[in-house]
Amino acid sequence: MQKEKKIIPRNLPGFEEYLPEDQIVFNKYYDTIRKSYEKFGFIPIDTPVIEYSDVLLAKAGGETEKQIYRFTKGDTDMSLRFDLTVPLAKYVAKNTGNLTFPFRRYQIGKVYRGEKAQRGRYREFYQADIDVIGDDELPILTDAEIPAIIYDTFKSLGFDNFVIKINNRKLLNGFFESLDISDTSEVLRIVDKIDKVGNNTVTQMLKELKITDDKIEKILKFITYNGSNMDKLEYIESLNILNNKFIEGRQELKTVIEGIRFFLVPEINFEIDFKIARGLDYYTGTIYETILTDYKELGSVCSGGRYEGLAKYYTNKKLPGVGISIGLTRLIFGLKEVGYIKSNEATNTKIMIIPMCDKATKKSFEIATLLRNSNINTEVNYYKKNLKSSLNYANKLKIPYVLFIGEDELKTEKYTIKNMYNGDQEIIPINQIVSKLS
Amino acid sequence: MQKEKKIIPRNLPGFEEYLPEDQIVFNKYYDTIRKSYEKFGFIPIDTPVIEYSDVLLAKAGGETEKQIYRFTKGDTDMSLRFDLTVPLAKYVAKNTGNLTFPFRRYQIGKVYRGEKAQRGRYREFYQADIDVIGDDELPILTDAEIPAIIYDTFKSLGFDNFVIKINNRKLLNGFFESLDISDTSEVLRIVDKIDKVGNNTVTQMLKELKITDDKIEKILKFITYNGSNMDKLEYIESLNILNNKFIEGRQELKTVIEGIRFFLVPEINFEIDFKIARGLDYYTGTIYETILTDYKELGSVCSGGRYEGLAKYYTNKKLPGVGISIGLTRLIFGLKEVGYIKSNEATNTKIMIIPMCDKATKKSFEIATLLRNSNINTEVNYYKKNLKSSLNYANKLKIPYVLFIGEDELKTEKYTIKNMYNGDQEIIPINQIVSKLS
Repeated sequence: MQKEKKIIPRNLPGFEEYLPEDQIVFNKYYDTIRKSYEKFGFIPIDTPVIEYSDVLLAKAGGETEKQIYRFTKGDTDMSLRFDLTVPLAKYVAKNTGNLTFPFRRYQIGKVYRGEKAQRGRYREFYQADIDVIGDDELPILTDAEIPAIIYDTFKSLGFDNFVIKINNRKLLNGFFESLDISDTSEVLRIVDKIDKVGNNTVTQMLKELKITDDKIEKILKFITYNGSNMDKLEYIESLNILNNKFIEGRQELKTVIEGIRFFLVPEINFEIDFKIARGLDYYTGTIYETILTDYKELGSVCSGGRYEGLAKYYTNKKLPGVGISIGLTRLIFGLKEVGYIKSNEATNTKIMIIPMCDKATKKSFEIATLLRNSNINTEVNYYKKNLKSSLNYANKLKIPYVLFIGEDELKTEKYTIKNMYNGDQEIIPINQIVSKLS
Repeated sequence: MQKEKKIIPRNLPGFEEYLPEDQIVFNKYYDTIRKSYEKFGFIPIDTPVIEYSDVLLAKAGGETEKQIYRFTKGDTDMSLRFDLTVPLAKYVAKNTGNLTFPFRRYQIGKVYRGEKAQRGRYREFYQADIDVIGDDELPILTDAEIPAIIYDTFKSLGFDNFVIKINNRKLLNGFFESLDISDTSEVLRIVDKIDKVGNNTVTQMLKELKITDDKIEKILKFITYNGSNMDKLEYIESLNILNNKFIEGRQELKTVIEGIRFFLVPEINFEIDFKIARGLDYYTGTIYETILTDYKELGSVCSGGRYEGLAKYYTNKKLPGVGISIGLTRLIFGLKEVGYIKSNEATNTKIMIIPMCDKATKKSFEIATLLRNSNINTEVNYYKKNLKSSLNYANKLKIPYVLFIGEDELKTEKYTIKNMYNGDQEIIPINQIVSKLS
């Protein structure tokens, strides 16, 4: 027989695909985030990966549009979703009459962006989003609950050292307006970069906007103001700025900070930071970033903010919202890079049964069923021809326990269970095995 | 301000998108299946939705190829996966050196087929697959474990009345060969349709293949043979057919049936059925279908079988396997159609706290945090302006408990908890609330 030519099995660049040990870590993160989101009363939704291009690109333009995976099938122009926010807007606009507001939804799913492929930049990646959408209005206390969710999520993921940074766009815009600066959104974008590019570059960039030196000095003093949350709230009070936006933003920020305390989030885990602004024009009030203090190089691992008019391209209804997003694929990539994630387990199996003779097959299968009925993940190794290769299999998968069933065990109905980490062995009946592993 | 033209928020046909109450049902099914799969020691993997077209279509052709979502971006020819088996083959061939064999993997994810859009036919849908892949060989007992997994899964999903149908391709092919029929795969395809089209049509179709009447009679007698599993095993023994394939298939079937019993699967839930053959050429030995006895109209809800050479388009390595697939989106559609699934809950939230005065906000947030720390899904209704609309919100979402915090509760530290189903109220301290809801 002629050998066929083989096709090389390979993946597209920018498309992550884990080996089992990393997939198990990913799933733990996924499950933990989902559980935290549900603890706060968020409702799951799942939207199609593919949408009509006109629906998906209603608001897009520029960079985003270039990155879209867009194609036609038959006569239909369709695109892959590039975030979970536009699909949410579509979903809410489409189903308004069937939803209960405020609509607290979470969605964890893959999104697609044809970015330049490079290490740590993905073209297919998971986002884990929550948003609360109000019908016409949404109280500012919602903005206080979001950091409580971020806190719960990252604590649940095993982190202690992280800071949720909080700012308010109205406060920033009001401040710039109080200095008679008209192009506030450009100033916002510059200011947002200060941690990356430094004070001098920001000064230079502001000068290019023809902002005078004394104003630049005021801006820098404001955005880099240091101190406790209390100090910062007092500082913005002390500025005596009469601009309405500034006053509104200040009041919102005060309420948010107070609310976060009500949720018992430790003061060390949240911080007013006048420097953060988020790139998107989209945000209108509170904004969030989250920094893992020990791994600052990862940048913000959970960001978001308050916005008005979620679905304005689809509906005249006013749908204000506040939300956050965790870039899950990127987070896990980053945590592996810095050595925080060490993939260990190659399976979720807790115990492997080894039948030591042909007669033991029946009993092995029965006991596997009993253990599984007690929700213990169990394998029977009927694959391998000898004990050595069976134990080798268990070792490679890092299965914590092995149970041997041979002639003696069949007679006594007591079974040898071996702890594969420390080598300890016990001979015990099945009910004790169940309680040991439950 | 001129009103902008709005884009109608809408979905592509064939793309399912649930309202929250259905999404919650879907997630329960998803979680239950995943848990069953993990109980049997299956390892999760997740492959990209998009692959190089040459990789994905290595084996495709005809109908499948026409249904593919295929497009180019830049110079790259790419396609969306149409099942989870080809990605598995690619994954195993690509990662052979890093996997432990037999490789027991599960994958639950979306796949894409541009089928003719019609009710219950999806273009984007979930499959929930398990496969066990051997390196060079895979013992027949694996084929016995698969029905134990199907049994556990459907029991866990809440079903009692279902039958796992089992057959063997070698047995069928050997039987046809013993009648000197050469085009066995065509006969297989015809025989497989008998439950749908009836005996007469099958007879007619076999006649068109120039099979003689006496042979057709023998085929029909064989495939429709009735009786217990024991009867059927005795029957194929009694036929005294000397064809090697037949004998091998008979022995395999016998071992599989015995093994299923070892796993304590009740006799009522599995059945040898000589009629089932599965359409795909792919299968080489044991085959499975699963019928919900009360909802036969749904067809097989979980099917699969044994195959050789999983990844032969990518590698010369011999990788035999056995697997099954649940078409999750279609299953849920069917179960809704027949009225089995009645969506009820619009949230996973267990309790909603209503602050009855402004002073109660702090305590409400604190108690929410305590409940959430005990893994109780909790909402605080700080959104609504009055009690009536707060209760209305809880009713619409069918939240089972509501907790009121007002002046009295703040003083006594005992809280009024109301069961929203029966209206019962109690006034109890927080620790009792925790234990009540845990």
